[in-house]
Amino acid sequence: MTAQHDDNTRPRVPDIGLGIGTLPSGPFDAITDVAGVRVGQVTVWHGDGPLQPGVGPARTGVTVIMPHDGNLFLDRVPAAYDQFNGFGKCIGIEQVDELGVLETPIALTSTLSVGRVADALISHAIATTPQIGITMSSVNPFVGECNDGFLNDIQGRHLSEADVLNAIEAASAGPVEEGAVGAGTGMSAFGFKGGIGTASRLIPESLGGWTVGALVLANFGSPGTLIVDGVPVGRLLQDAASAETERGSIVMVLATDAPMIDRQLRRLARRAILGLARTGSLGGHGSGDVVLAFSTAESVRRPYDAPGWTLPMEIVAEDGPGGSSAAVDALFRAAVESTEEAILNALFRATTVVGRDGNTREALPIEPVVSLLERYGKLQLTGRREWPPS
Amino acid sequence: MTAQHDDNTRPRVPDIGLGIGTLPSGPFDAITDVAGVRVGQVTVWHGDGPLQPGVGPARTGVTVIMPHDGNLFLDRVPAAYDQFNGFGKCIGIEQVDELGVLETPIALTSTLSVGRVADALISHAIATTPQIGITMSSVNPFVGECNDGFLNDIQGRHLSEADVLNAIEAASAGPVEEGAVGAGTGMSAFGFKGGIGTASRLIPESLGGWTVGALVLANFGSPGTLIVDGVPVGRLLQDAASAETERGSIVMVLATDAPMIDRQLRRLARRAILGLARTGSLGGHGSGDVVLAFSTAESVRRPYDAPGWTLPMEIVAEDGPGGSSAAVDALFRAAVESTEEAILNALFRATTVVGRDGNTREALPIEPVVSLLERYGKLQLTGRREWPPS
Amino acid sequence: MTAQHDDNTRPRVPDIGLGIGTLPSGPFDAITDVAGVRVGQVTVWHGDGPLQPGVGPARTGVTVIMPHDGNLFLDRVPAAYDQFNGFGKCIGIEQVDELGVLETPIALTSTLSVGRVADALISHAIATTPQIGITMSSVNPFVGECNDGFLNDIQGRHLSEADVLNAIEAASAGPVEEGAVGAGTGMSAFGFKGGIGTASRLIPESLGGWTVGALVLANFGSPGTLIVDGVPVGRLLQDAASAETERGSIVMVLATDAPMIDRQLRRLARRAILGLARTGSLGGHGSGDVVLAFSTAESVRRPYDAPGWTLPMEIVAEDGPGGSSAAVDALFRAAVESTEEAILNALFRATTVVGRDGNTREALPIEPVVSLLERYGKLQLTGRREWPPS
Amino acid sequence: MTAQHDDNTRPRVPDIGLGIGTLPSGPFDAITDVAGVRVGQVTVWHGDGPLQPGVGPARTGVTVIMPHDGNLFLDRVPAAYDQFNGFGKCIGIEQVDELGVLETPIALTSTLSVGRVADALISHAIATTPQIGITMSSVNPFVGECNDGFLNDIQGRHLSEADVLNAIEAASAGPVEEGAVGAGTGMSAFGFKGGIGTASRLIPESLGGWTVGALVLANFGSPGTLIVDGVPVGRLLQDAASAETERGSIVMVLATDAPMIDRQLRRLARRAILGLARTGSLGGHGSGDVVLAFSTAESVRRPYDAPGWTLPMEIVAEDGPGGSSAAVDALFRAAVESTEEAILNALFRATTVVGRDGNTREALPIEPVVSLLERYGKLQLTGRREWPPS
Repeated sequence: MTAQHDDNTRPRVPDIGLGIGTLPSGPFDAITDVAGVRVGQVTVWHGDGPLQPGVGPARTGVTVIMPHDGNLFLDRVPAAYDQFNGFGKCIGIEQVDELGVLETPIALTSTLSVGRVADALISHAIATTPQIGITMSSVNPFVGECNDGFLNDIQGRHLSEADVLNAIEAASAGPVEEGAVGAGTGMSAFGFKGGIGTASRLIPESLGGWTVGALVLANFGSPGTLIVDGVPVGRLLQDAASAETERGSIVMVLATDAPMIDRQLRRLARRAILGLARTGSLGGHGSGDVVLAFSTAESVRRPYDAPGWTLPMEIVAEDGPGGSSAAVDALFRAAVESTEEAILNALFRATTVVGRDGNTREALPIEPVVSLLERYGKLQLTGRREWPPS
Repeated sequence: MTAQHDDNTRPRVPDIGLGIGTLPSGPFDAITDVAGVRVGQVTVWHGDGPLQPGVGPARTGVTVIMPHDGNLFLDRVPAAYDQFNGFGKCIGIEQVDELGVLETPIALTSTLSVGRVADALISHAIATTPQIGITMSSVNPFVGECNDGFLNDIQGRHLSEADVLNAIEAASAGPVEEGAVGAGTGMSAFGFKGGIGTASRLIPESLGGWTVGALVLANFGSPGTLIVDGVPVGRLLQDAASAETERGSIVMVLATDAPMIDRQLRRLARRAILGLARTGSLGGHGSGDVVLAFSTAESVRRPYDAPGWTLPMEIVAEDGPGGSSAAVDALFRAAVESTEEAILNALFRATTVVGRDGNTREALPIEPVVSLLERYGKLQLTGRREWPPS
Repeated sequence: MTAQHDDNTRPRVPDIGLGIGTLPSGPFDAITDVAGVRVGQVTVWHGDGPLQPGVGPARTGVTVIMPHDGNLFLDRVPAAYDQFNGFGKCIGIEQVDELGVLETPIALTSTLSVGRVADALISHAIATTPQIGITMSSVNPFVGECNDGFLNDIQGRHLSEADVLNAIEAASAGPVEEGAVGAGTGMSAFGFKGGIGTASRLIPESLGGWTVGALVLANFGSPGTLIVDGVPVGRLLQDAASAETERGSIVMVLATDAPMIDRQLRRLARRAILGLARTGSLGGHGSGDVVLAFSTAESVRRPYDAPGWTLPMEIVAEDGPGGSSAAVDALFRAAVESTEEAILNALFRATTVVGRDGNTREALPIEPVVSLLERYGKLQLTGRREWPPS
Repeated sequence: MTAQHDDNTRPRVPDIGLGIGTLPSGPFDAITDVAGVRVGQVTVWHGDGPLQPGVGPARTGVTVIMPHDGNLFLDRVPAAYDQFNGFGKCIGIEQVDELGVLETPIALTSTLSVGRVADALISHAIATTPQIGITMSSVNPFVGECNDGFLNDIQGRHLSEADVLNAIEAASAGPVEEGAVGAGTGMSAFGFKGGIGTASRLIPESLGGWTVGALVLANFGSPGTLIVDGVPVGRLLQDAASAETERGSIVMVLATDAPMIDRQLRRLARRAILGLARTGSLGGHGSGDVVLAFSTAESVRRPYDAPGWTLPMEIVAEDGPGGSSAAVDALFRAAVESTEEAILNALFRATTVVGRDGNTREALPIEPVVSLLERYGKLQLTGRREWPPS
């Protein structure tokens, strides 16, 4: 049995005519709409039947985000981490907080695999910059995680160094596979199958013309609480009596080509929470909800060694002409909308997965959701589209 | 011309049959459902016509929340402050962060009046505990604020010490006046008249039986972005072309009788943001969005002088029977739902106000909103109620 | 009876030949060595004998720091606040944290006067920028405080708006009066008379040539714990048996012309704690120890309204040529050394003050301290100087 | 060639008659004076001569601290993390911040080994609690690190899972080996050989009778800046001209049996910085200076599953009889003094180590230091003791 994540009969959110928010999306409606950003994923899927701790079945993987094409250690991008609920174990946050830069790819994976995946990022950094730890300083890997233990043998930590290096190697621009793929393979959300989702939003040219992209690893939300563009789909489709405790998490990654520095990126990151809230999150105790935001703009990059003791920058003006905050407000709106849609895309695209002990996460049923959206008038704004297109 | 905030033809959210979330409300559906909590408000309203800076017109006030009936300085309640967007000037946060307790009433007011209102809280503390600063330590007042400058002469700082002391004196349990009253007199939200709103939610007995109450000073949100229980009311009712920048703010106060200590209260406070998000906030740059949460439970009080070097406490167990977080998750849900409803109650109850320079904030039009909620199927869950009742 | 703070028979630290650290000082060895920074102080001193709460005696004042000569609201300096121990009630920290800028003078004063002094800063801002709150946004005053209640009638809040405005008016470059003056009038440190102290350090030209200046309001430290350049002066001079609890506080202000942005300034601010530690602080529970740091560099200023949606900046490179952090490390060293010396200068210069109820704070006895420093070999490094000079 | 860390001709600080601070030490003057705390260390030492990246020479190890004898995952201790300068990559801070508890041993190691050591802690947790990730939640390992790259082939990441498990297995109460041992094997401080150091302080019975213990991994400080009890030993013994940039770090761990909860432990942790400052730290940009503090008191433990929705606790009263903070102030003082002495013990005990490429870190020369301490009058307080004892 193999992963079914290439089920192209499942639509993304815009495919059914549902528009989240008001800003337009980029060409791929993905984090890769931010120029230079690439995504690579490796899925690890083997075994079936009863859990044999440490052996399988494996339903897991790794998803890697590359902020730019160059050497990330020598040409650092500004970044910020924001923690809505820290029930988790992201690696790399100490230094991102202090220095406001990122110096490796971002890797997302299964909760107990964080040590090994961080170690693999270190291997990758050493391979690309052999001076690390000899004539240069140490390197700070960044890893986010969620708990895919409902479907996956997490004790087995089935991600190898090769898997991570392959994901980096495979990273590409353009469309991003969503749902039960890469780190999303074994994840659940709102009692449905969750996983990887992405989306993007474009800021008007008059306000800078920048792009914001979101990629999420969605593994959160209790059954009965999913909201799709304001419609309480979870309450209407699911049996509240069966409600499990929210034990998941979500890692949200925001990319932008707007020249934002760390403080500004922390503010951007925080807005992802507003998008998260709109999908129905109640901020469960056991849900580690965190955000990492970075900028790809060259004017805010921080080289390993600057030519002098000062560094020129060109950064977003929070107070622009006439004291207006319209540009940064548009960026904030883009963060909210792209995060909300990315979460929904993860649910829309994820296929049913049967994992350890026969545990099964059913895919979100598309037709009933579309019906509800119609009944609640949600597809009237943009006009319902046929899916799959005939 | 006098304040019109006693317009009882305007419903609260439940009056039209709209249920926000799934938990039941307390008897007053107000922060005062948390036993011992009292609210007092003083409205300052004088003058009309052109703004005379420093003179008027005044459309402002103060709203005071009393955590319990006793001496707040000697019998401190645990508290936590959370800052979603710090474009504002709350007073008192340094010490709340460090010590995790509150030692005065909470006062909400107009942005430039914070200094004078803090000074009045100091006067009140001295009057009730004359040893302050002589044989006892200093006192830390807590003041939150929003900018009511669209309607009010904020340079005039029209709140006197007597106004604050009168609000404290007037504080009472039971129903809380909402809308254009007290600190809410001159506030706006989503392009409509905003102000004071409140709501409460009850946790099941089997999960502790506690109450969470929210009181908000709502002065945030751009026109066109208001969402009522998932329905994009702002987009449907308002002309997007006229959209102003979000320049407002919101102060959210949560009270609970659950015995939560500061770290737990910070987590509770953070969930208020999820409720805020559901009303349409995009986290505008200029919107100071902050939360203060406190517990009234006697088992977590912190006296000015404990009898020994240790203090017994009984606190909420985040990991309860079987490792379940069901109790704290219910408290979090209550924080989300009560905050969302409190914001909507502020809008539903606030009446049109004409302020400085004839600036006018129209009340949210009830009938069109009810029609939209019906059209979007929102009143089907609970059944629409007639309003006003015939 | 008048203040005796102009006792020029009392030396500053360098006057006795004691060199703190290794970096050279600027011409005034004061925060005003940072070009453009000015300091103004008003002392309020009236009454004697028994405390009449609300009446006197008054032994207090205000000290104001002006970051530059222009309109601070329209031409904002980057700033950061760091809280080592938040037993206090600084006003203005919420917005400094969020936006990373300062927009008023910095005022230091007596603990219960914070509300009135913040209000006076608002009045000053309105007077210099009448559009505030009308066509422009609100203004965020910054006030730090310590508790001078041992000598002063703090319930009386004896600072008027005029006192604050006079301090701003009187602000000047050049030498800064230290000890029992301005906000320092009634302050105590280590059981001796404390108050205002200042110092500066110069970074080598090869590392940027910048200046760091510190100004402190020193009101902290238990008797018996004072350390002067490594010599346990407190333990040697004071009777440990009489030790009172540490109930004081210290506000430390750092200024620099290095073009540091908020995150960098927060790091600079944090280093002030290292200087504080070297004077003997044990970080007492009741000692509010906080730092505000700002940069005067034009290349990092943030105007109220930028001409476009981006802003050019030139900032300090934490990783300079060859990846070296030598420049920022020198700035950090300057922060440590100038803070340590500023605290000692406050003690060296402060004169004995008799306050409410006849409470007396003796000045640090210069001769015994000099003897101890000699005995412990401390004046050998630089050569003891005669004081007063003959 | 083998490690020389058992050179018992090198004294600890008290052995030469130097008393740091005023509180007495516990029987072992070590973190293990806190009842139940155990320390285990494994040293990895192989190879000599030129660096072969990935092969050797290895001069590294792991040091493990066990908070109590039971199952740490099921019986959690309250803990707090404080970051003075986050140039590092501690693992586990997200969840410690959010939940305020620790659920694995604390491991200290070489910078690039953090991923593998975290993974080994996960293996250990799974072995002791096989339900993790199956019927129980995930586990959060805590790892601190410093960069031993001057002596060690850090790219080789020479710590195996077995090394970590052996260190846990070997953990014992009683005396703790210091200097070039375990994680300290390849570390440097102030241009001398650094490594592991420990110390403890006892609070008077009248103030609770508690113990505070510190254990540090000292790898920080520029040559020329070391201060020993106020004497500028570095400036007097080292050639300033040869000064390298501060590239090190320090991880400080505090244990106490005082029943402190997370907020209180964060305050305790912060005081370690004051001890650090007294040894000469200038808070270098590249020095990751962090603190983890935990309490072993049973009255503040947090079980994996509480029997009900509330949990009784007995916690330290920050405001004790008469409003006095004497108990918490004593705890703070103990944190300052034990951290300062622990750092000095690391330097006193560490032996010269020759590492990769023949790089050599000389041990701190004891005799010259003792001479300086005598010359500066430091041994007069307690009387110099002969070392080694004759």
